[in-house]
Formats: sequence, structure tokens, C-alpha cells
Amino acid sequence: MDVIADLEERAKRVNEAIASYLESGENQKLLLAVQHYPSAGGKRLRPVLAEVVAQAVGGAGEKAVPFGAAIEIIHNFTLVHDDVMDNDSMRRGRPSVHVLFDVPTAIIAGDALFARAFETLSDVDVPPQSTRRLLKLTAHAVWLIAEGQQEDMDFERIPPTELAIGDYERMIWKKTAVLFECAAEGGAIIAGGTEEQIDAMRDYARSLGIGFQIYDDVLALLGDKNTTGKPVGNDIRNGKRTLIVLHALQNLAADDPRRTALLTALGNANATPEQIDAAIQALQDCGSIDYALEVARQHAAQGKKHLEVLKPSPERDFLAAIIDYAVNRKS
Amino acid sequence: MDVIADLEERAKRVNEAIASYLESGENQKLLLAVQHYPSAGGKRLRPVLAEVVAQAVGGAGEKAVPFGAAIEIIHNFTLVHDDVMDNDSMRRGRPSVHVLFDVPTAIIAGDALFARAFETLSDVDVPPQSTRRLLKLTAHAVWLIAEGQQEDMDFERIPPTELAIGDYERMIWKKTAVLFECAAEGGAIIAGGTEEQIDAMRDYARSLGIGFQIYDDVLALLGDKNTTGKPVGNDIRNGKRTLIVLHALQNLAADDPRRTALLTALGNANATPEQIDAAIQALQDCGSIDYALEVARQHAAQGKKHLEVLKPSPERDFLAAIIDYAVNRKS
Repeated sequence: MDVIADLEERAKRVNEAIASYLESGENQKLLLAVQHYPSAGGKRLRPVLAEVVAQAVGGAGEKAVPFGAAIEIIHNFTLVHDDVMDNDSMRRGRPSVHVLFDVPTAIIAGDALFARAFETLSDVDVPPQSTRRLLKLTAHAVWLIAEGQQEDMDFERIPPTELAIGDYERMIWKKTAVLFECAAEGGAIIAGGTEEQIDAMRDYARSLGIGFQIYDDVLALLGDKNTTGKPVGNDIRNGKRTLIVLHALQNLAADDPRRTALLTALGNANATPEQIDAAIQALQDCGSIDYALEVARQHAAQGKKHLEVLKPSPERDFLAAIIDYAVNRKS
Repeated sequence: MDVIADLEERAKRVNEAIASYLESGENQKLLLAVQHYPSAGGKRLRPVLAEVVAQAVGGAGEKAVPFGAAIEIIHNFTLVHDDVMDNDSMRRGRPSVHVLFDVPTAIIAGDALFARAFETLSDVDVPPQSTRRLLKLTAHAVWLIAEGQQEDMDFERIPPTELAIGDYERMIWKKTAVLFECAAEGGAIIAGGTEEQIDAMRDYARSLGIGFQIYDDVLALLGDKNTTGKPVGNDIRNGKRTLIVLHALQNLAADDPRRTALLTALGNANATPEQIDAAIQALQDCGSIDYALEVARQHAAQGKKHLEVLKPSPERDFLAAIIDYAVNRKS
């Protein structure tokens, strides 16, 4: 199975839906700012997840399309605001919204995407009582994402040696996995799945999301700027406490020069490219990148077990393939 | 009728609801940031409007309390983000969220308030199909508020002589009146009102909101900092194109020294207190403040006519009193 081609094919319907949900509005500048990230593509993992889970559980996938679009619009809202907060100037190989426009417009564009996502949610064709459930699920997910982003920033100010790996895992669960969970759980609800299926799809998506984020942290160090669309080493410069960094600091002795190389660059806005490279090299040498890859792949293996609740189908196979892809991709 | 005492009395239930909806979360800093404006009070006009409209239409007002709380939480989310964008350092006599914490925390706190508002919406005890209607209504209102805020900022960069009074009215409709409309329309929906009643309550609230905002612009020039909680003259310094300013520029001749006084201070971040005072004096002398007061009071009179669709009740009287209060208050 060519998972990327399959993902692209499955994303077509949701891409059309996203474009149509974001085309109406009176303020041209705001509309352009709102459309800037969604129109630049992206893997569409979350909406495709909602759609495929709905199919795999036994409902019609198209009923999950507006919901998936809402989830992807929420994802894009968080990217717009995160880029302002992290002062990231590039996204998907293009200037960030606040760079192309300005910070106030980026704040409003994020808010507008958020609003449009919830308006889209009212369009989902489900029994009325399910609308309430989807609303609660999705709104609570956004609250948790906000907590995750706050923790991610708070962590940057805590000495990395004082953070436990559990703190990091809880943070990335909130910041990344919760929206995957919401997509999958929502897809199962829309398909009229049993509570057992709904729970299993959420648990599958949790593993997918955590594995995805841990692997993303690896890509941010080793990936190619041209394929990831983001400058390599930004996480080091911003002082992100990733699993990789926490593992290295737990394992490198106080007098190890690799520890010094890492701490010299970590959170140092003025670190030179050479210092960034030395820090990445240190993380590679001490096995922390391999460790993170291993953990990401353990999550993928665990996630696949939750798929056993589903009947065999091409969609179940796709869900298994997508979790492998999440922890082996190039960008 | 002592409308302020009545408003305070009616706000008690919603205040408890707002506090309880905002008390849970894992990140203490984020919770404090989230609670900062809601806990500082405010008139609670919007949630009380939802509650009283529900009563006046004939339903139990308490069913509208979670909805009113959601609307007030949305209002507070917009205040948090607006203060970041407008760089306003004070709100309700206290430091703004981004001053007390920092800009990223304020952006996240706004997002978190937004999320919690929609979670609260899922708690509203209405027939399931009404949940969907309330969701669409409220989410679309937030989109329009975002457009209104964008236009407000865009207008600051347009020569004030190029803006029509209609542009200003459309902007404040979006920025302010739409949330009043949403509160009243939602209250009528929750009470099971007829479509005629629902429409009338929305139209009443539109007049209330527009009158409220025009009067607010007057207060921002003439009000006492101690009662409004905001520094007087900020709107001049920020270059806000209010009805007052637009009227003055349409009526002051090119060689009128009052025109010069106004244009010297308008949008001038470095304007001295004396220059600000001179601009306000010019607006007063040329009758533009009186004009705005007159327009605000016309909206109030128009709004009251829409109440005729309701049976006589203390709640209908309160709705009439509140619209008079909106255009005659001290803060």
C-alpha cells in the first residue's frame, strides 16, 4: 500500500470541504489570512482519520467530512496562534501569517478559524443528540490543546533537568494527541459506533498522536528544511524540552562535553549554526534520537492493537498503515 | 426601577455559573489568566439579556443561564485578545492579561475562554435540535466579531475623511451588537419562542448593542477613568474612527482650528495630554459628541418598539429600562 498516495486520494474530499467552508466572509484581508495555512496543504491526517474511522466502524465516511474539516480548521487555528507565540516565521515553506500580515491580524485570523470550525460542526449530519456530544468533545479538546501549549511554553523556563519524561508525555498528549483523539472518536460517533469501538478509536488515535509528535521532534532536528518547511534546529534554539533532550540530560554525565554542547545551544536565541549542529550531534551520539524513535515506534505498535476491535477492511488496514507512516515519514 | 440594582441582582446567578465554569483546569497560570477578567466583574449585560429575554418570552430564565455564561465568556475572550491587539494596558481598573502575564499567555487564555464557552454551550438544557441552532448562531457571531475587530483596526489606517458613517455602523454592529443579538436571540430560542419573537428580540438587541457602543465611544472621551476603568483619550491616541470623529470631520471646514486640533492628536501615539484634551474639546465644541448621544438615543427608542411583540411583564419593563440605561450610564 502506498500510504502517501492513499492519504492524498482520501484527502481530496476534505480539501474541497475546507476550501468551501473558508471562502465566505466580508473582509478580504481577514479571509486571505484565514486561508493562508489551510490552502498551503498539509497532510490532512486528522480529517482523513475522522473519515476513515467512520468508514471502518461501518458508517458512511462522507458524513464525517464536515467534522473532519472542522478538526483540520481547528488544527490550522492553533498553528496560526502558535507561530505568533513561538515567533516562528515559516510554515509549510511559506511565511507565517503574522509575518505576511501582522500579529493582530494573525490573532484575529486564528480566532476566526476557530469560530468557523464550530460553525462547521453545526453542519454535521448526525442525530441531534450527537451534535451535543461532538460539541462537548471538540470544545474540550481545544481547552486541552490550550493547556498543552501553555505547558510547552512554561517548560521552556524550567531547568530541563527538573522535568520528568512523564511531564513531556502529558504535554504532547494535550498539545498534539488530543486532536487526533477527537478526530477518531468523533468519526466513530458519527458512524454510530458502539461505546467499545468509540473508546478503541480514541485510544488508537492517542498512540498515533503521541508517536507522531515524538517523531516530529526527531524530524525537527534531522529533517530537511525543504521537505519539512521549517528551519532545522529551531526547537533547540527555542529551548523545547523534547523527549530527546530530556533523555540526553538524564543520561549524559555532568562532565560530558556533549552535555555542555547541548546546554550551550538549548534555549539560546543567539546560538550559532555551528552550536546548533554540535547540540544535534550530541543528541545523536548519546543515543537519545534513537531512543525517541524507538519510543515513537512502540506507541505505533500499541496503537495498532486497538484496531482489533474493528472488522477487517481496507480502512482498518489504512489505519494500521497510517500509524506506521507517522513514525517513519520524511516530512 | 433602579436598573443598576436590578441588573446586579439578576447577574448573581450568572456570576456563580461563570465562576463554576472557569474553575477547572490543570494549569494554574492559565486558569488565573482565564479568570482575570471574568472575576473582575463587568456589567453582565449580555448574560442577563439572555436570561431576561427567556423569561419575557415565557420560558424559565434559569435554562438560559449556561447559555448566558457562554456568551459572557466569549465576550471576555474577545476583551483579552483585543487588549493585546490594541496594546491596552488597563481593563476594569486592573492590568490587562498580557500585562499581568505576557502576550503568549494572553493569546492562549483567550483561546481557552473561547473553548470553554463552547463546552458550556453543550450544557444548555434544550431540545437537541436547538443545540445545533444555538451552536450555529453563536459560532457565526464570533466570526462576525472577528471581522468587526479586523475592520476596526483596518479603519485606523484609512484616512478618516474617506470613511462613511455607514462603514462605522457596520463595524460596530459586528464588533459589539452581534453578541447582544446572539444573547437575546439565543434566550428566545431557549424559551421556545415563536420565530416572530426570536426575530424581534434580535432586532431589539441590535439597537441595544449599537446604542451601547456609540455611547461607549462617548464615555471613552468624557468618562471618568475611575468609573470606566480605562484611560480617557485612548481612542483618540489609537486613531479610532468613531461616529464622533467621522461626524466632526464631515462638519469642520478645512481651515477650522478645531479640525487641526483633532487631526493633530488622532492616531498620534505621542500626543501630549494637552493635545488629547484639545481634540476632545474640539469634538465637544463642534457638536459631534451631542450628535453621537442623539444617535445612540434614537437607537434606544427604536429598540424599545421591538418589545411590543412581548406580553406586558416586569421582564419586558426591564428590557426597556436596560436600553435606556445603555445610553445614559456613567460607566
